[in-house]
Amino acid sequence: MYSFKNDYSEGAHPRILEALLQTNQEQEEGYGEDCYSKQAVALLKKRLGREDLAIHFLCGGTQTNLTAISAFLRPHEAALAAESGHILVHETGAIEATGHKIISLPSRDGKVKLDRLEAALEAHTDEHMVKPKLVFISNTTEIGTVYTKKELTALRDFCREHGLLLYLDGARLGSALCSEENDLELSDLPELLDAFYIGGTKNGALIGEALVICNDSLKEDFRFHMKQKGALLAKGRLLGLQFLELFKDNLYFELAAHANRMANMLAEGISKAGYSFFSHSPSNQIFPILPNSLIARLEKKYLFFVWEKIDEEHSAIRLVTSWATKEQAVEDFIQEINSFNKNK
Amino acid sequence: MYSFKNDYSEGAHPRILEALLQTNQEQEEGYGEDCYSKQAVALLKKRLGREDLAIHFLCGGTQTNLTAISAFLRPHEAALAAESGHILVHETGAIEATGHKIISLPSRDGKVKLDRLEAALEAHTDEHMVKPKLVFISNTTEIGTVYTKKELTALRDFCREHGLLLYLDGARLGSALCSEENDLELSDLPELLDAFYIGGTKNGALIGEALVICNDSLKEDFRFHMKQKGALLAKGRLLGLQFLELFKDNLYFELAAHANRMANMLAEGISKAGYSFFSHSPSNQIFPILPNSLIARLEKKYLFFVWEKIDEEHSAIRLVTSWATKEQAVEDFIQEINSFNKNK
Amino acid sequence: MYSFKNDYSEGAHPRILEALLQTNQEQEEGYGEDCYSKQAVALLKKRLGREDLAIHFLCGGTQTNLTAISAFLRPHEAALAAESGHILVHETGAIEATGHKIISLPSRDGKVKLDRLEAALEAHTDEHMVKPKLVFISNTTEIGTVYTKKELTALRDFCREHGLLLYLDGARLGSALCSEENDLELSDLPELLDAFYIGGTKNGALIGEALVICNDSLKEDFRFHMKQKGALLAKGRLLGLQFLELFKDNLYFELAAHANRMANMLAEGISKAGYSFFSHSPSNQIFPILPNSLIARLEKKYLFFVWEKIDEEHSAIRLVTSWATKEQAVEDFIQEINSFNKNK
Amino acid sequence: MYSFKNDYSEGAHPRILEALLQTNQEQEEGYGEDCYSKQAVALLKKRLGREDLAIHFLCGGTQTNLTAISAFLRPHEAALAAESGHILVHETGAIEATGHKIISLPSRDGKVKLDRLEAALEAHTDEHMVKPKLVFISNTTEIGTVYTKKELTALRDFCREHGLLLYLDGARLGSALCSEENDLELSDLPELLDAFYIGGTKNGALIGEALVICNDSLKEDFRFHMKQKGALLAKGRLLGLQFLELFKDNLYFELAAHANRMANMLAEGISKAGYSFFSHSPSNQIFPILPNSLIARLEKKYLFFVWEKIDEEHSAIRLVTSWATKEQAVEDFIQEINSFNKNK
Repeated sequence: MYSFKNDYSEGAHPRILEALLQTNQEQEEGYGEDCYSKQAVALLKKRLGREDLAIHFLCGGTQTNLTAISAFLRPHEAALAAESGHILVHETGAIEATGHKIISLPSRDGKVKLDRLEAALEAHTDEHMVKPKLVFISNTTEIGTVYTKKELTALRDFCREHGLLLYLDGARLGSALCSEENDLELSDLPELLDAFYIGGTKNGALIGEALVICNDSLKEDFRFHMKQKGALLAKGRLLGLQFLELFKDNLYFELAAHANRMANMLAEGISKAGYSFFSHSPSNQIFPILPNSLIARLEKKYLFFVWEKIDEEHSAIRLVTSWATKEQAVEDFIQEINSFNKNK
Repeated sequence: MYSFKNDYSEGAHPRILEALLQTNQEQEEGYGEDCYSKQAVALLKKRLGREDLAIHFLCGGTQTNLTAISAFLRPHEAALAAESGHILVHETGAIEATGHKIISLPSRDGKVKLDRLEAALEAHTDEHMVKPKLVFISNTTEIGTVYTKKELTALRDFCREHGLLLYLDGARLGSALCSEENDLELSDLPELLDAFYIGGTKNGALIGEALVICNDSLKEDFRFHMKQKGALLAKGRLLGLQFLELFKDNLYFELAAHANRMANMLAEGISKAGYSFFSHSPSNQIFPILPNSLIARLEKKYLFFVWEKIDEEHSAIRLVTSWATKEQAVEDFIQEINSFNKNK
Repeated sequence: MYSFKNDYSEGAHPRILEALLQTNQEQEEGYGEDCYSKQAVALLKKRLGREDLAIHFLCGGTQTNLTAISAFLRPHEAALAAESGHILVHETGAIEATGHKIISLPSRDGKVKLDRLEAALEAHTDEHMVKPKLVFISNTTEIGTVYTKKELTALRDFCREHGLLLYLDGARLGSALCSEENDLELSDLPELLDAFYIGGTKNGALIGEALVICNDSLKEDFRFHMKQKGALLAKGRLLGLQFLELFKDNLYFELAAHANRMANMLAEGISKAGYSFFSHSPSNQIFPILPNSLIARLEKKYLFFVWEKIDEEHSAIRLVTSWATKEQAVEDFIQEINSFNKNK
Repeated sequence: MYSFKNDYSEGAHPRILEALLQTNQEQEEGYGEDCYSKQAVALLKKRLGREDLAIHFLCGGTQTNLTAISAFLRPHEAALAAESGHILVHETGAIEATGHKIISLPSRDGKVKLDRLEAALEAHTDEHMVKPKLVFISNTTEIGTVYTKKELTALRDFCREHGLLLYLDGARLGSALCSEENDLELSDLPELLDAFYIGGTKNGALIGEALVICNDSLKEDFRFHMKQKGALLAKGRLLGLQFLELFKDNLYFELAAHANRMANMLAEGISKAGYSFFSHSPSNQIFPILPNSLIARLEKKYLFFVWEKIDEEHSAIRLVTSWATKEQAVEDFIQEINSFNKNK
């Protein structure tokens, strides 16, 4: 069985394990004050083009989201997210567990829309309701779509005008920035966002996300929040070292580009075979709509999620590629579809 | 500079990195449902002698404590801990952040005393006060002392009689079980405790603690709590694989025994040099009381914490050894002390 | 200006003030252990037909909801409510502030629908999502509709079958039970619900709600939760005494019936004048759709909320009546409308 | 049985009930925006000598403390209180339930001491520990002692110097300000404190405390926090009206002075009868040390708390007087003691 279930099926990129091996015996300070974490912070600041950023390494997406958002909000303030937003749906109420409501914004493509945001602000008029404060977006979104620079700029402007914070979940930021439809640079982000994280786990790291705080007013005492939420690792070197390896040359982007290329190959093959897609997704997740009988056949050889029933005879499935996806597996998968088509 | 600051200065035991390397390319399920995590759970159950345990792998001590304790308590229930307890002092209010008070019990040696526990129960009489519910202990304690089987049994009996839960923080459980004063077996623990964790980070793992829930009433839905607190790793294989390696033969105990032996060597050398100790600590942390002038000299070559001022001319320092401590470093350290003594 | 804004514009029914006056100098125990609170509990048990109920008096609806729901749920469990539900919209995230997500269920008439409930359960499949546990309903609903016995029974059966708790916010329970469309008895409620509260503030009390816990598993230690949330009044007599007065004869229902009768008069008059309604509301809140020019005229003499824009020239307004609403005010209001119509 | 158990045994001062009666039928805005609450706010500002204060009315001490403290602190910040502090001992973990640790400061007389405060700051050195932020004091303290202006000024200066907030729980502020040892004016408080509350419940009100926020940075959005904690009463007039009555002339102070006078009479009588006291308490709570046989005799006619065992034959009891305490009851109580002494 070959898996297209997600982008965290394999371990880490070999260069990362190599770096762990090379540095293993050295004695280092704990809790993120080791030399590798410090070097990784310095390197990321350089890549992001700003020296005034606060950068912290955490273990995973939910941990990063809950630590950051609970640190940024006062008790009566709420986050806002597209209805498919990870914090709304797939984090077991992690944000609410820190005391904050998340306002759900209707959205078909996974992106936060200005008109929906505006409507939410208008609906929250007084102290009988939470105060909307932080707009949560993800890039790529949960359904594989990608924000353009224009969209992000418009969101940024709206947020500034209305006293809102703009936070980006970058679990799949690599795939977003390497998408053929992307027009953002990594170094554009600090100007556009109050805070965001650069996802490592889904792009070749064993574990780890790099939280970047751009807004000065959010930086103070952040390590206290990390410790309180269990996010300050004794062997913080494990996190810093990986980001050092991913960003010391172009590895982070090469891995994401590979994942995108594999997804693209899959999409083209499926499209040529005559099938359409549930969403327009120029990244490492695609959502083809296939006949249930074909799905049943594919499930014998491949692991993937059935995403949504379309009609009695068709469903959308989700295929995810990663830095580790093998081209041969992609070819075989397309071959399997073509073979099904011939035998219909 | 050689460090005796803590037991997490180096990376992981080489066998662990080797195992990561060997299995790196395999595709596995996420979130702790990979084959290594499953094997590690099965192996630990065997070592613990009970099939009915619920075992979960988490990232660090604070995360494990806050996830477990908040899952086990209702909102009005409180934990109780010795005044030096890690959750009381060194976790930035992580337990309180989940809504629970911790009642502080006076203790000189880091252990929870029955009479103090009883006094706390007597002082909490009605609904104007929190309801004491979970007794937090650590083994080894924060100051290196070790519980005997008799002490643990007495605590267990007291807790059962009074409807209390008994939870053990085993960040340094390896060192405790390998202490020359220890009379507990790993397999004794499920009978004595409602839940406990086996520390990996401080005994040779890169990252990871194994939480063992013994009490049936605490097991339900625990993975929900883990996800909510950001403790469910996408690449959970990283945690499971390490425990598999540590427990598939005797590695876990060999590493702890080495750490203890190094601490013992240090203690003997310091004792022979004529110095006494702040606490009786038969584990991998020792607390010698030294002249400040000697401390100043040692600080030029070694990293360690000055623990507490004793009088105008003496302080206690903390020396911590680990699986990675080099015998030569211990010898050099003692040599440095002896050389100081000669030149006095 | 006469107010139809809400049902808490006036003070308390005179009999309540009289009772406060009569008992004022007596010395009583604090924190709800006074003789009046005890008598009120005994009386309510009798009226509810069950001796095994746990009954507590709290100050207001939000306080009651947050204290009860946070006491009833474990950290990963969520409430479910109709999208207009008070806890979802108008309590400033009070439930989330205690750590719990509320799942929003689409609903046009303010009631929780079985099919929506079922869909929510199906969508929450594993530990990456909260666990739905408590169904929140209100009677009357936020838009004045009333549950039938059949509807409540169906909800109760569904909840029992799926391990859910059913909780009813009875801020306007008096109006519901006195509605001409009601077929429930007060004494039916303990069989149908796990917990509910009988609203006092909006039905003639100065302050106070009576929480009734029917499900044994939810009763333990409830006073601890009250104290922790600031809901245990030193002079608890103030709450108990009022419920004693409201329920020692039929006062509670007489007050609600008056409010309903006043709303009914308003609705009939408006209907006769040729206007329709936003919702079918057989209780003390009605939502007529009026021309904006008429609304502007009414606003010169009356206080009320404009509820929702219907089209460019019409809006729905909300009119609320209470135990204190004067028949003359109702007649004048209708007269004002008729006079407007004549002059059109 | 006559009660000296507390200062909330009776209802309200008759003038308060009278005011409720007089205004009962008037229609008023809800949630504290009624004309009485507004007048009471204006009046208190005048009495306090500052127009820039934010004043809110809440229901009780625990509610006020938890709403204010959770609004004032960020998640990693802690309160500090004397070990007998109400929030530490008698509020069922209400502050911890909002996520914040309380650091306990040793204190024999119920007051916060500068040296203990300083020691606590020194002990909290980094992000592994909570960040001390808000100093909680009460006046009178839980054991009846009273702060002098000099003590409060020193605390204020220390707090300003160290970036701490100073918060005063004034549940018994009336008794404190009317104590013969007091040298503070009500109007001194805004200069000395960041926030405090003026207790109503224990000084003649039916229910209600007036929170005064002096520090500008703590004022924003406070009504949101009140609503979220269930502290915004629909019929807020009930609270505002009482403070209006208590402060429109000197009633608040007259009631407290009476309570103190009654306590003083008790203390003098007991002292003359040859007994000493557990603490020096120049306010409405006194703590005489009596023979257990005398206590047993008194318990047949009077209600009071036995505070603490002193030796095998003596205990301290707590006697509390209030605005409603009858002089005759005090005389009878002393007579009972004298009669016991004669018959010894």
